[in-house]
Amino acid sequence: MLATLIHGERDIRVEEVPDPQLSTGGDAIVRVVAACVCGSDLWPYRGVTPTSRPHRIGHEFVGVVEAVGPDVGRIRAGDFVIAPFYDCDMTCANCRNGFSTSCLNGGWWGAKDRLGGFADGAQGERVRVPHADGSLTAVPGGEPDWAMVPHLLTLADVMGTGHHAAVSAGVRAGSTVVVVGDGAVGLCGVLAAARLGAARIVAMSRHSSRQSLAREFGATDIVEERGEEGIARVKELFDGIGPDCVLECVGTAESMDQALRSARPGGQVGFVGVPNGGSELPIREMFDTNVGARGGVAPVRNYIDELLVDVLSGAIEPGRVFDLELPLTQAAEAYAAMDERRAIKVLLRP
Amino acid sequence: MLATLIHGERDIRVEEVPDPQLSTGGDAIVRVVAACVCGSDLWPYRGVTPTSRPHRIGHEFVGVVEAVGPDVGRIRAGDFVIAPFYDCDMTCANCRNGFSTSCLNGGWWGAKDRLGGFADGAQGERVRVPHADGSLTAVPGGEPDWAMVPHLLTLADVMGTGHHAAVSAGVRAGSTVVVVGDGAVGLCGVLAAARLGAARIVAMSRHSSRQSLAREFGATDIVEERGEEGIARVKELFDGIGPDCVLECVGTAESMDQALRSARPGGQVGFVGVPNGGSELPIREMFDTNVGARGGVAPVRNYIDELLVDVLSGAIEPGRVFDLELPLTQAAEAYAAMDERRAIKVLLRP
Repeated sequence: MLATLIHGERDIRVEEVPDPQLSTGGDAIVRVVAACVCGSDLWPYRGVTPTSRPHRIGHEFVGVVEAVGPDVGRIRAGDFVIAPFYDCDMTCANCRNGFSTSCLNGGWWGAKDRLGGFADGAQGERVRVPHADGSLTAVPGGEPDWAMVPHLLTLADVMGTGHHAAVSAGVRAGSTVVVVGDGAVGLCGVLAAARLGAARIVAMSRHSSRQSLAREFGATDIVEERGEEGIARVKELFDGIGPDCVLECVGTAESMDQALRSARPGGQVGFVGVPNGGSELPIREMFDTNVGARGGVAPVRNYIDELLVDVLSGAIEPGRVFDLELPLTQAAEAYAAMDERRAIKVLLRP
Repeated sequence: MLATLIHGERDIRVEEVPDPQLSTGGDAIVRVVAACVCGSDLWPYRGVTPTSRPHRIGHEFVGVVEAVGPDVGRIRAGDFVIAPFYDCDMTCANCRNGFSTSCLNGGWWGAKDRLGGFADGAQGERVRVPHADGSLTAVPGGEPDWAMVPHLLTLADVMGTGHHAAVSAGVRAGSTVVVVGDGAVGLCGVLAAARLGAARIVAMSRHSSRQSLAREFGATDIVEERGEEGIARVKELFDGIGPDCVLECVGTAESMDQALRSARPGGQVGFVGVPNGGSELPIREMFDTNVGARGGVAPVRNYIDELLVDVLSGAIEPGRVFDLELPLTQAAEAYAAMDERRAIKVLLRP
């Protein structure tokens, strides 16, 4: 079958690889219907994190179950499933606490898993899914219309991650919110904040197409300024003191600084941008202002059931973050388009 | 009148100073019935923070109102009042949000206030209180029995600060909790967590008298180990993953590290120890574990009404943290006793 491998900086290739095999008893083999490229895939693509040897890449997919191991009970062949960007058993203490990204038995796509096998990357024709009963969510009604697929695909990562930013920032009905970052996750953060009932949502963005989508997702205001100017503008919009909640959806030192200094005293930053080249959090500043920080790698599996209802009803349309669709064979172009910001997020269709 | 001044490292003197005068229209003059020494007073005492010139010190007191300015309406002469460790108007946006320590018009005892005057330190016979209507809480029923005074005095700082640690850590009914720090604030943190319904509370302490009080305040377990050993012991007590909530009540780099690495994935650290010599918060570690951090200078004024009910009913007895009472004239000995850990907390009686 075909799958995407990263060979090094800006070197993405779609190659013939062996078909995945059931091996643990708890596995499923899923035929991928749609996958996509994540902002975090760009770190190795750009060489910011090194690639020491060619390996499978990708961690977001939806598809149809082709086979399951003998220990799998909840998931069946023929199910249309959403996979989170990791595998998890959903039975350990951390999964039960709502933090399946810290599953005591889980693992990451494209890495050695804790069962000793190699979990496939997701940008391919098929994927072996460990802990299928825990990891996968079957969509009621089987394979949906194609128009629904992009929305479902966002539940694998970006919509769940934007939701995690909002939840971590404590967004609730009536909250005032600022979203730092206008990538797919930031835009999903706007949508998540609106869904949770935020009274006012500021999207910080300089790109007109992203500003438009942010407004359609529920942003009430756009701020183009950054740094000191951006902070001053945001404070001004909220009684001179700043908003209750800030969603940090970038992961740089600058964006975190922007987020922490924008929140009002006693406010909260929910952060989901993978920290890259970032400084540590300034404890004295946080102490003086009582601005909290909470977030991290989003436990999207724990959010899928709740968000799926709203996706299936059409209440939210997070799949609108996909503004380019390419065949899997053009994965290299998908990476380039995102790297050059020609696309917000690219869907790959095997 | 007499008041305490710090002249430099380990140089505390009780001296004759001018009586305070009403000056802003919103002031009250309070005759101090009881004051005390705070752990944070030990930073200048030990020379960790420099003292460039002699100045008034102390920020916790209760007393009787002797006079009020013409703009004061809620507070009256004769009221027995609790003052928080700062002054605040309780009408600005931050005060209304529950964060009166960020009052847009407030200030700190012993410092220039934002009205341009000098707010007295609290370890003296009388104190001028700016924003009397906002800052002060009149205790119903007037001057209480002496036995009640120490409990009321803790609402000026330590009990409210311990409560803030618990609230910031998200303690609720059924939570599992670890408290780092066995000073007066840490012990009040134990009491606050128990009051909020925590299911299990571990006090980290090596001092037998503090361990005893922690148990009486509601600690279910004591851990004497620190560092890696302490973390391992705490994880072991909670399913191998750690507690939901950790209260950081010290303020050193070591104690914060202990707190962050003890919490379970998705847990929360509530920190109230004034950061001194501390490192910044490790964002990558927090990202990977989803452990949040929230806290800071405690808005005790916002908590007084709620806690006062339980103090007056006898449901909580936070004043038990005072294990030494001295006349104001022996303030120097009070500092020495706390510095040498001969006392947990010292009450000063003018």
